[in-house]
Amino acid sequence: MAVMSRNLPALIPMAISVRHVHLTQATIDRLFGSGHVLHVHAPLSQPGQYAAEETVTLVGPRARLSHVRIVGPPRSADQVELSQTDEMELGIAAPVRESGDLAQTPGITLEGPKGRATIEHGVICALRHIHMSPVDADVLGLKDKERVAVAVTSRDRRLIFGDVIVRVSADYRLELHLDTDEGNAAGLHSGEEVLLAEISSSLGRSSG
Amino acid sequence: MAVMSRNLPALIPMAISVRHVHLTQATIDRLFGSGHVLHVHAPLSQPGQYAAEETVTLVGPRARLSHVRIVGPPRSADQVELSQTDEMELGIAAPVRESGDLAQTPGITLEGPKGRATIEHGVICALRHIHMSPVDADVLGLKDKERVAVAVTSRDRRLIFGDVIVRVSADYRLELHLDTDEGNAAGLHSGEEVLLAEISSSLGRSSG
Repeated sequence: MAVMSRNLPALIPMAISVRHVHLTQATIDRLFGSGHVLHVHAPLSQPGQYAAEETVTLVGPRARLSHVRIVGPPRSADQVELSQTDEMELGIAAPVRESGDLAQTPGITLEGPKGRATIEHGVICALRHIHMSPVDADVLGLKDKERVAVAVTSRDRRLIFGDVIVRVSADYRLELHLDTDEGNAAGLHSGEEVLLAEISSSLGRSSG
Repeated sequence: MAVMSRNLPALIPMAISVRHVHLTQATIDRLFGSGHVLHVHAPLSQPGQYAAEETVTLVGPRARLSHVRIVGPPRSADQVELSQTDEMELGIAAPVRESGDLAQTPGITLEGPKGRATIEHGVICALRHIHMSPVDADVLGLKDKERVAVAVTSRDRRLIFGDVIVRVSADYRLELHLDTDEGNAAGLHSGEEVLLAEISSSLGRSSG
């Protein structure tokens, strides 16, 4: 694959996101009781983010998925991030979307120990993305919202992901985020490194 | 992506294989009763192969997966084909392997309406592959066991799969087979076409 300048290719860290939910305090109140404060189970790689001790059950038309982790802190909108395998199991068809882009996405019912909440929208399959700081973006020569390609050289499952969107913020640490389907298709495990490259002509064509 | 001669790139049909099992008649006897004959639910694209009406339950250390389809006709060895998502759910770590390459693979317990059977090995995650006839192979300029790349231009999940193995037999019909993780990572649905290409330099490097 032809790679141009801009300090690419570059090896970058990668993490696989298992299905999880971001919740508003109002939804946390309904599922866990009024004024409930999430407990930190483990800090995540992105500064300030953590896996909470609390989990919820997702109730879809076809099945239930229990022990789904809440990622804290609370947010201004409820968001449920699933793999397409999860969607198939639950019986929900959610689009591939950037985090926060929740217009015209399906809803779902969540269950906690103290109650249920049905959200009208907010279920997405996350668009694969790279978090980076403005300094990282400068060094790599990339801009926020740009799409790049990432090459993976795992045993028997080598591939090149296109449509990897760059997200730049002072709150971010350099890391590629894939969902479980994507990680598995590439034979990757969290903590491994991948090769960030210039998008190739094949992967740069308009989608269909 | 640089593409060389050999009548490539070429558009080819694609199908996504959901988890399924191939069973010996002896295992069918144990699960469904002595002398049980599988019933055809639907013919599959590969000549002579069919989804049976019969399903089994897979019993792993961590969970059970029910309604797992048997693919007939019976074979000379039991083989369970899972996605890595399925493996994670069941609590089994099976390698990426070609069909039939079952040495040093894990076993599993299967349940049917008339009994249980525990197989000592046979659980694999299928290596992505293209079935083709000798005539197709001649036209495309490819050989059995050769590894090629396949490009997918789906909306928001474009990618290039490396490590796609070519399998040539007079019994085969031209078709790429992916598992559900791979299909989802590429935003594909069964019946869509993909672009078979010469393997690129990035995807041709030795794996690590």
